[in-house]
Amino acid sequence: MAAPASNLRINGDRLWDSLMEMAKIGPGVAGGNNRQTLTDEDGEGRHLFQKWCEAAGCTMGVDQMGNMFARFEGTDPDALPVYVGSHLDTQPTGGKYDGVLGVLGGLEIIRSLNDLGIKTKHPIVVTNWTNEEGTRFAPAMLASGVFAGVLEQDWAYGIEDAEGKKFGEELVRIGWRGDEEVGARKMHAFFELHIEQGPILEAEGKEIGVVTHGQGLSWTQVTVTGKDSHTGSTPMPMRKNAGLGMAKMLQLVDDIAWSHKPDAVGAAGHIDVFPNSRNVIPGKVVFTVDFRSPNLATITDMEQRFDKGARDIAAEMGLGIELEKVGGFDPVTFDEGCVTAVRNAAERLGYSHRNLISGAGHDACWINKSAPTSMVMCPCVDGLSHNEAEEISREWATAGADVLLHAVVETAEIVE
Amino acid sequence: MAAPASNLRINGDRLWDSLMEMAKIGPGVAGGNNRQTLTDEDGEGRHLFQKWCEAAGCTMGVDQMGNMFARFEGTDPDALPVYVGSHLDTQPTGGKYDGVLGVLGGLEIIRSLNDLGIKTKHPIVVTNWTNEEGTRFAPAMLASGVFAGVLEQDWAYGIEDAEGKKFGEELVRIGWRGDEEVGARKMHAFFELHIEQGPILEAEGKEIGVVTHGQGLSWTQVTVTGKDSHTGSTPMPMRKNAGLGMAKMLQLVDDIAWSHKPDAVGAAGHIDVFPNSRNVIPGKVVFTVDFRSPNLATITDMEQRFDKGARDIAAEMGLGIELEKVGGFDPVTFDEGCVTAVRNAAERLGYSHRNLISGAGHDACWINKSAPTSMVMCPCVDGLSHNEAEEISREWATAGADVLLHAVVETAEIVE
Repeated sequence: MAAPASNLRINGDRLWDSLMEMAKIGPGVAGGNNRQTLTDEDGEGRHLFQKWCEAAGCTMGVDQMGNMFARFEGTDPDALPVYVGSHLDTQPTGGKYDGVLGVLGGLEIIRSLNDLGIKTKHPIVVTNWTNEEGTRFAPAMLASGVFAGVLEQDWAYGIEDAEGKKFGEELVRIGWRGDEEVGARKMHAFFELHIEQGPILEAEGKEIGVVTHGQGLSWTQVTVTGKDSHTGSTPMPMRKNAGLGMAKMLQLVDDIAWSHKPDAVGAAGHIDVFPNSRNVIPGKVVFTVDFRSPNLATITDMEQRFDKGARDIAAEMGLGIELEKVGGFDPVTFDEGCVTAVRNAAERLGYSHRNLISGAGHDACWINKSAPTSMVMCPCVDGLSHNEAEEISREWATAGADVLLHAVVETAEIVE
Repeated sequence: MAAPASNLRINGDRLWDSLMEMAKIGPGVAGGNNRQTLTDEDGEGRHLFQKWCEAAGCTMGVDQMGNMFARFEGTDPDALPVYVGSHLDTQPTGGKYDGVLGVLGGLEIIRSLNDLGIKTKHPIVVTNWTNEEGTRFAPAMLASGVFAGVLEQDWAYGIEDAEGKKFGEELVRIGWRGDEEVGARKMHAFFELHIEQGPILEAEGKEIGVVTHGQGLSWTQVTVTGKDSHTGSTPMPMRKNAGLGMAKMLQLVDDIAWSHKPDAVGAAGHIDVFPNSRNVIPGKVVFTVDFRSPNLATITDMEQRFDKGARDIAAEMGLGIELEKVGGFDPVTFDEGCVTAVRNAAERLGYSHRNLISGAGHDACWINKSAPTSMVMCPCVDGLSHNEAEEISREWATAGADVLLHAVVETAEIVE
């Protein structure tokens, strides 16, 4: 297959205008977006995307999880399509780019091919995966997980939001449960463009992240039980301070993560203290340890060392401890051919780049189980995401979509 | 003055029955009490106490802070009264004994003197201090603080509860704002019986705590500022983890408190983590450090070492830190004569005893500024208090009230 010429570029202004237009739907309170999955705003965003896709000559398919597939025909009707996309849903206080850039970047590829009259052998399908964020209906990456056969569709339908509304019912309510069997589509490859959601590219002045791996994750919820007692009248030797136990365990998490530098990470983001009163020694603390690494053996080692170390701390302090694994997925190694297509695209276009390991989960991590997959990342300001202040530059978005275009078109085999 | 004979005892069954009767007013949801200050239930409890006091031959005075003073005449109309009492208000999920034992123990003294036809030279006044708990209207020990001239009455009237209701207005609403000038009364002495609210007496099998000191207290609210960022995509060296900073500072609090053993204590009971999400590194943690010691120099040393150590930790980790002193009182040394009266009473009655430093604040700590004061403590099961499961035995209550009786009657000078 021929590589596209290096002067093949997307239209950065058009992409940016579409990002801004989509951001008008479900505006946040602080300049970002609140377009949570299966809300009326999500429905409105889907309609706008469908309208744009159809105007670009695509036909829309929708599966029973609400995943959207805008197909742009290739020259060979029997060739498997190259898929490209991400998600249009946002966090409750989300940004304008997380997910959206990957979907509208895919659409921009089709528009650019139209501009130039370029055809590919393989069809190209631009995809919007339902409920990537998982804030309203946990877990995250729900519909791509069902598509990849990792999660059960009926189970997904039964998931309830905070108000007790079911995923399956809300999907019907907004009118986006399609007829297509979930996961029936076969893919030649899948590419996802996403903002980094981390600080590395910006800090190093790189325009493109070539994503070689997705970190595996392990979440352990820890419940440390001491004894509520008065901060004044309980002598130090008679205390069972669950808060102090938690503090020692947080230090342990940090020590373990550093011991596997440079790629492993560890922290606790969620910590609840009971009864949480200034003059009561904490009788209980519940917190969640988040360990990640691109290496499965490293994750296992971190889990095991934390389990032993935390139990030792608890025993030494006379505290009770329960450890429950509440989440996890294995590390992802993206397809070598797809990764190379992304790296070659960046190289050909003259964008500075480096390999990245994705620290966050993405739809691509699940789809990698079904099809050759890789990701393109662009920087975001200060690494900030899941925040209305999330920001990227027009130039970063353009570079990311240019690389996506080249990787997709090369994989879909450009036809002269 | 003559010491009372060792066969002079209170009526333990009558005391216990009164405790149980009072506990019917404002019952909790789990066997304890919710009789918060200036609620209708507080008013009902006050009426019952007044009825009992008047039946025992006392006359009731009420001051402008709602403090109640039930006076039982002595033989010398010019002698200053000996005061005895505590508080009838409870925590929202409080026990049946915290405070109540001290008030009804005082009443039981009067009833016992009536039984035996014993008179004292000095009048005896049984007192119910308003709003000792401070949960509804912070701070604690509010009305005894105004009485002792430590707090301002007008300021106290303006304190609002969580619903925006003012202390002064609620005091009027329940009908217990009296006319008496607050703090105008002069005392010969003040004695307070209270449950320990700590584990020492029970653990050592002692029936009586002779309270020689009240611990001083220092509360510092610490705000540690890092940077919210994704637990997956932020490399370890680029993190500003406010949660880990908090953990190191909690260890520092513990180290500092142990360095001043055996009497100093330190902990953080209140810890709030922001945004408190499993996959976000904490960008901010707010927690309150509680240091206590019976020695003022020790408190000052602990404060200073924590201030420096916490700032060093923050600087090393690239975190912001703010420290604000949000509460404190100086250590209390109770009156030597009153302490001796308590110790002699326990000795005379054959109760096992030991000296105690009160770890919690009590009305007696403020009244000690106005009059010679001391406290009697009795054990409580497992040191548990501020909890509906708070429990004491009838024997412990009896022993505590016996000692209170002897200390009060000896100080009030028994008349043959």
